[in-house]
Amino acid sequence: MSNSVERWDIFEVKLNGPSEGNPFVDVQVAARFSYKHREVVVDGFYDGDGVYKVRFMPDTVGEWRYETVSNVPALNGKTGSFTCTEPSAGNHGPVHVHNTYHFAYADGAPHISVGTTCYVWNHQGDELEELTLETLRSAPFNKMRMCIFPKHYRFNANEPPHFAYERKADGSWDFKRFNPEFWRHLEKRVGQLRDLGIEADLILFHPYDRWGFADMGAENDDFYLRYAVARLASYRNVWWSMANEYDLMESKTMADWDRFFRVVQESDPYQHLRSIHNCRGFYDHNKPWVTHQSVQHSDLEAVRDWRETYRKPVVVDECKYEGNIDMGWGNISAQEMVHRFWQGTVGGGYVGHGETYLHPEDILWWAKGGKLHGESPERIAFLRKLLEENAPHGLDPLPPVGKWGWVRRDRARSGDSYYLFYFGIAQPGRFEFELPEDKKYKLDIIDPWGMTITPVEGTYSGQFMLDNLPSKPYHAVQARMVE
Amino acid sequence: MSNSVERWDIFEVKLNGPSEGNPFVDVQVAARFSYKHREVVVDGFYDGDGVYKVRFMPDTVGEWRYETVSNVPALNGKTGSFTCTEPSAGNHGPVHVHNTYHFAYADGAPHISVGTTCYVWNHQGDELEELTLETLRSAPFNKMRMCIFPKHYRFNANEPPHFAYERKADGSWDFKRFNPEFWRHLEKRVGQLRDLGIEADLILFHPYDRWGFADMGAENDDFYLRYAVARLASYRNVWWSMANEYDLMESKTMADWDRFFRVVQESDPYQHLRSIHNCRGFYDHNKPWVTHQSVQHSDLEAVRDWRETYRKPVVVDECKYEGNIDMGWGNISAQEMVHRFWQGTVGGGYVGHGETYLHPEDILWWAKGGKLHGESPERIAFLRKLLEENAPHGLDPLPPVGKWGWVRRDRARSGDSYYLFYFGIAQPGRFEFELPEDKKYKLDIIDPWGMTITPVEGTYSGQFMLDNLPSKPYHAVQARMVE
Repeated sequence: MSNSVERWDIFEVKLNGPSEGNPFVDVQVAARFSYKHREVVVDGFYDGDGVYKVRFMPDTVGEWRYETVSNVPALNGKTGSFTCTEPSAGNHGPVHVHNTYHFAYADGAPHISVGTTCYVWNHQGDELEELTLETLRSAPFNKMRMCIFPKHYRFNANEPPHFAYERKADGSWDFKRFNPEFWRHLEKRVGQLRDLGIEADLILFHPYDRWGFADMGAENDDFYLRYAVARLASYRNVWWSMANEYDLMESKTMADWDRFFRVVQESDPYQHLRSIHNCRGFYDHNKPWVTHQSVQHSDLEAVRDWRETYRKPVVVDECKYEGNIDMGWGNISAQEMVHRFWQGTVGGGYVGHGETYLHPEDILWWAKGGKLHGESPERIAFLRKLLEENAPHGLDPLPPVGKWGWVRRDRARSGDSYYLFYFGIAQPGRFEFELPEDKKYKLDIIDPWGMTITPVEGTYSGQFMLDNLPSKPYHAVQARMVE
Repeated sequence: MSNSVERWDIFEVKLNGPSEGNPFVDVQVAARFSYKHREVVVDGFYDGDGVYKVRFMPDTVGEWRYETVSNVPALNGKTGSFTCTEPSAGNHGPVHVHNTYHFAYADGAPHISVGTTCYVWNHQGDELEELTLETLRSAPFNKMRMCIFPKHYRFNANEPPHFAYERKADGSWDFKRFNPEFWRHLEKRVGQLRDLGIEADLILFHPYDRWGFADMGAENDDFYLRYAVARLASYRNVWWSMANEYDLMESKTMADWDRFFRVVQESDPYQHLRSIHNCRGFYDHNKPWVTHQSVQHSDLEAVRDWRETYRKPVVVDECKYEGNIDMGWGNISAQEMVHRFWQGTVGGGYVGHGETYLHPEDILWWAKGGKLHGESPERIAFLRKLLEENAPHGLDPLPPVGKWGWVRRDRARSGDSYYLFYFGIAQPGRFEFELPEDKKYKLDIIDPWGMTITPVEGTYSGQFMLDNLPSKPYHAVQARMVE
């Protein structure tokens, strides 16, 4: 047991206790961590072979103490202490909501969310999983949507190497006995994502199931949630997604989804981000336990409307995927994917990537990871860099204007310092811009596909017509304040 | 006065009468045309210089007689007769609604509506107007949206050569005295369109006005409508559009629009097609005097919904224009314009073209005509030919399918004989088709932009997966029944 851990890393208390009976059910273990007069109570979990663990993510530099609490004497009243040190470079802590519509790390560093989806990359065996990690190393993504449970669906016929549960003698699952090996593997992958600077958007339930995990019953669902949170919440890069396509899970009611949110909310000492992903209709993101909107939708022009409706960050995790499969949600072009990223961005939201190119061995990035084959990631990297340099705390769309209250869906800004106009399918040869009268701006013409930034001569203020624009679709203009 | 006229051409009765006072107001003249025991009463009009005319479009081959009716003795009780002969080649009569959602000519010939817009091409003087006609000769359009009144708007600063009214001594308009020279010019242009096989979709009112024609008062509005119908209804290629962007005309109420429809409906002996074009919200196309929907909207996927809502043909006259001006409605790419044509087509509607490329002398096709500069017309011609050959009576979208009632917006058919699948922004590398089990089809892959039709080997029936599709956006597949 190390006596020192850096801020937002994991301090783990490991204890030996009983292994007879069913320790998952019979034994409760927790620890009270304290810093000066502040206390944080953290649930522990059984990790098999008589080993119990309590994991803690300290958020404050200094001396921490702890004392364990258990219904089993061997695990009760154990005390200790450790030093929480300054975080190392690249460790900014967990991501939280910032300025209503945006995100930031706990240390205040900005977080421009650029997600991708590999639903069950962590169920593919080491070879492919390591290839996925290698791909991610140079990919532009800082969030990964991934399922805890395996997936049964088209292109997803293979059996996973490990399961979350032990089987009973009759071969059926014992939903009261977890398989620690499975969970340790999951944690290893979550930790590897963290080390790559990637948030793990963990999908707790999903409908694509042939094993029975989509329909375990309410008691087992809650039991599972508490175990998952106890094991994983100390990973600073965890986000909780109650479901992928919650509305396709016929075994669950809206009351179930509400309860899942509350179970996670009450169990998680760190209040990681929480959301839920839809197929057809949105869950009511106004509910207080929802921290941000996780959206499946194809109309990226509506992002600004959803912002206003729910007053929370909009993450369009699924707006169709770049690919060429025979299903409409998985065959948009790279050009269209890039377009949607830009549309969502000027709407003041965050768009997610996915890729579904037909593959001879059914290794589609969207489900299994592997390699990226598409042309959008490079352009997404270009956009991410542009935003991080010019609008690190996010973009906000401009308010409606004029006597009809026209909503301009082509422009956003970061305060007065930066304006971004994205013309999408429009191809103006000239365009009338509106900037603050009392500031001066340098303009650039941006080609999001060609990844070029071409300066426009002069400085600009107020309302003006800019001629000699490219007259081609999918271009943008940025205005950066110079004084 | 000719004693013979072909079916659906114009038989004109010309009479001399008084020119003192205000003949437009003081004199009523009409004629009762009869064929056997059938009578058609047709309003005449004053054409200046003591000349009165009654124009009639006979719809039946054979001997017709007429007798004039007037409150002026010199114009009353004049009789005559003429022979209506078989129409010449290319004369199919006026276009009417056919099969609820489609159009056909009076002789039963199909009419695939492919419109364009040159709002005030007829107000530009002979040189440019003749250039427009020359362009139309080889363009793919068979309908022209055009205004009776001139237009005041961006790119439309020039004064028209003629006005519909005489001026009073004080320079203001005399809304009770028409300028026959203006109307004869208009009729000449409508007749020239007819001779090119182009329907003249005459816009009776519009909001873009600096002369006062948008706000003449209810009595003058009605007086104008009756005069316009009396002069123009005998042109078989006339369609009546109550307005361009009716909802931007603040001087008129919904009751005015309803009345305009009724005035035109009661005055027009031939019941030419009637509609009204919106800016923001639709007029209620359910009203019984609306024959078809004239739509301004950018979401071509909604065409099938509007069909169901109003059960009338959908003509999307404005879905943004190919061009590069600084306004969002006039700067989509040719690719996007072609895409929208195909989307609207598989939705079971008819899409209209327009073009707004910046021009050193402000000659933009959308308003003034002239030459076409874009790349869409050639592709629109390709689509028109494809439809005329394979689905001359129009396409109907397929009904929703499956347990969720999914609406497939990518497919349409003409009975069982022809199916068209358009993938739009999707780029499937393979696709699952559903065709009737008991028929056999030949398939072709269509590139609407490249204008190629590539046969697929074999014949197909029922449900099947087709591999080796192009994996590029904006492609289509057609299935033609072979047995």
